[in-house]
Amino acid sequence: MKKKNINIAIVGLGNIGSYLYSYLKAYKMEILKKTNVAPNIVFVLAKNKRKKRKLNIPKNIWLNKISDVYNNKKIDVVIELIGGSEGPAKKLVFESLKNKKHVVTANKALIAKYGDQLSSIAENNKVNLEFEAAVCGGVPIIRSIKEGLIANNIKKIQGIFNGTSNYILTSMDKYNISLQEALSNAKRLGYAESNPSSDLNGEDVASKLKILSALSFNSKINNNIHIEGIKNVDHLDIYNCNKLGYKIKLLATAEIKNNKIIQRVSPCLVKNNSYISSVDGILNAVIINGLPVGKSIFQGEGAGPAATTSALVSDISSILRGNIKYPFAISNKERENLSSDSIHNQEFSAYIRLDVLDKQGVLSNITSIFSKNKVSIKRLIQNPYKSKKYSSIIIITHKIKDIYLKKSIKILSNKNFLIKKPKLIRIENT
Amino acid sequence: MKKKNINIAIVGLGNIGSYLYSYLKAYKMEILKKTNVAPNIVFVLAKNKRKKRKLNIPKNIWLNKISDVYNNKKIDVVIELIGGSEGPAKKLVFESLKNKKHVVTANKALIAKYGDQLSSIAENNKVNLEFEAAVCGGVPIIRSIKEGLIANNIKKIQGIFNGTSNYILTSMDKYNISLQEALSNAKRLGYAESNPSSDLNGEDVASKLKILSALSFNSKINNNIHIEGIKNVDHLDIYNCNKLGYKIKLLATAEIKNNKIIQRVSPCLVKNNSYISSVDGILNAVIINGLPVGKSIFQGEGAGPAATTSALVSDISSILRGNIKYPFAISNKERENLSSDSIHNQEFSAYIRLDVLDKQGVLSNITSIFSKNKVSIKRLIQNPYKSKKYSSIIIITHKIKDIYLKKSIKILSNKNFLIKKPKLIRIENT
Repeated sequence: MKKKNINIAIVGLGNIGSYLYSYLKAYKMEILKKTNVAPNIVFVLAKNKRKKRKLNIPKNIWLNKISDVYNNKKIDVVIELIGGSEGPAKKLVFESLKNKKHVVTANKALIAKYGDQLSSIAENNKVNLEFEAAVCGGVPIIRSIKEGLIANNIKKIQGIFNGTSNYILTSMDKYNISLQEALSNAKRLGYAESNPSSDLNGEDVASKLKILSALSFNSKINNNIHIEGIKNVDHLDIYNCNKLGYKIKLLATAEIKNNKIIQRVSPCLVKNNSYISSVDGILNAVIINGLPVGKSIFQGEGAGPAATTSALVSDISSILRGNIKYPFAISNKERENLSSDSIHNQEFSAYIRLDVLDKQGVLSNITSIFSKNKVSIKRLIQNPYKSKKYSSIIIITHKIKDIYLKKSIKILSNKNFLIKKPKLIRIENT
Repeated sequence: MKKKNINIAIVGLGNIGSYLYSYLKAYKMEILKKTNVAPNIVFVLAKNKRKKRKLNIPKNIWLNKISDVYNNKKIDVVIELIGGSEGPAKKLVFESLKNKKHVVTANKALIAKYGDQLSSIAENNKVNLEFEAAVCGGVPIIRSIKEGLIANNIKKIQGIFNGTSNYILTSMDKYNISLQEALSNAKRLGYAESNPSSDLNGEDVASKLKILSALSFNSKINNNIHIEGIKNVDHLDIYNCNKLGYKIKLLATAEIKNNKIIQRVSPCLVKNNSYISSVDGILNAVIINGLPVGKSIFQGEGAGPAATTSALVSDISSILRGNIKYPFAISNKERENLSSDSIHNQEFSAYIRLDVLDKQGVLSNITSIFSKNKVSIKRLIQNPYKSKKYSSIIIITHKIKDIYLKKSIKILSNKNFLIKKPKLIRIENT
């Protein structure tokens, strides 16, 4: 007989933990109706026990330390909402799985770093390790790859995986404001944390991409990944790209070519009539190319306690229903160690911006550097600054291996007619 | 111990059945890796046994009649790909479930008509009734509603659910061709069946919408639904709408207002900068508004053997994995009989096209009819025909209850200055 109650401990009661706590209290009967099992919150643990919370948590369900959680025989499912790839989150998840407890986590950094080891422990102990909430908030992308699209041989995944940076890029474009101003707005509206560095430098997206790659390609987590954040995108780039018919988006792309995996995260130019260019604000989107299904798109709110709770509850419900699965779609023994290829060997068209002294010979100097390095120019626009002493030169290149683009940029960087670091933003066909 | 093989019978070997047969033969080991159970095709049954097929089906696995399938003790899972809500498909699915076999079907007409009864039998017999392939082909929307979005209280679903009619509308717009011409192209390319009536008259979409409503609102299948197809949309309407900043799409909408369900299928004007206006060709898209998740979008190929096989295999895999679920997300005993509201009481802005004799007094006659029937005009454009004897009057109305729009149109229909039946196409805010 199936257990009619399953005992849950929530560890971490920030925005997300608090929302989840209230949700599970309010909708326990709804979940019972759908899964035949009631989710019982039996214990909670959070950093500041005495902090005033609106939750009305009974005193007798508070635990004091994480070993109280993973050693507690009464707990069936541990929800880890501490965050961070090391320290207490790591200890809690490893030890809980070792003690045959199911684990649900929203911790992308932890799964991206230790997912292979953790899934192996979960598998051996026949418990679930679920992390739908770690990738793209409310978008049920992990469940869709593992179940809805299970028939498919996936060769490419691409998308917008970070709501904060997408909100910033969208605001810079829409309201004609600087990155700093957009970031302040994002913080004020709760779309960015007080320390948004992992959102801005691409690390958050990289963790999510590594997880989705492993799931989609039935492979071990691969750490060969090119990562650039949005910090160097300025308002003039967005303006220029608009004029040229593009938007700038922080894109994550993983693909298999010649049996090698290629992973990259960077701001990219995308055509302004493409689907992905319309994914604005805090939205996330994932595009999957699979056989036999073709191209599938999943879009939804990428962050925030509400959307994340939707994902957490889907994970919890899967456990309640007894739907035991391999955390990464197939057994660890079957997951391949794919070799990877670097971004250097991939071909891109690119947007290049050079801010230069406006004097004779500069343009011919620039074009000759590109020419010597195999970069062929498709389009070139020279805009004088208002001061007229300087010019901004915008170049769209033909497709060429990334290594040649980088090499040209490196040579240009050292030229004394440049007044700023040159900009290189790749164009992605989405 | 779990069975390590599950025995499958495929009934119906048209395009989809044939594709599925080949797929399961080719990818048996891949599915075993993901589910721990191998899908064994033990029998097939199809109308014309002697028809030449490329499949190389062994002679000894052919059955002769559907009772051979549902009475066969060796079969665990029946895949019904016959189609139609009555006749052999109905018999096969009812009897198979009664005999405690799992059923996977792509038959939207059958599920929309008998889904309540069938799910009750499946539930009582603790077998799965799966129909992911019945709605929106390769888009894993049913699994997403039942699992990925399980936490959500869904209040509205809307989308493009028919690839054939969407292909036709897109082609009429893009290539400036008539509906007939677009339909011929669709047939030639395999996007329309030889008898496409259920695609064109909205019935196919209506079946899918009823199924998704029942799933999303945890209710019994509700047959109160307004249905219009695309047959009356002509090229001039598309041209007019483009000028006004709209696209015409065959939209399905179901929503809950004041605890009542409202379902409608009709061609609609959607703003040409909206997401849904960009869903072109044979693509399908579903937009779901749920709490806590917010707005989610699912897009993919809506038809064809490849996309449908992706859906069928997701259903089969769920059975292989032993993931027993209520066919309609919750138990039949819990599913509500929601009362419904008619489209009459809903408010819409609308596009109205009146082809009239170009003579004095006509315009004032028209505007006075609208005015008497509470319809207020937001925009009016009168275009003379080349012949100059006739005019086409295009009106965009303010929001008003549908019943008043219909009433005005009815009165206008009888006026002898009208040279064609008036057109009414509602505007949907998507």
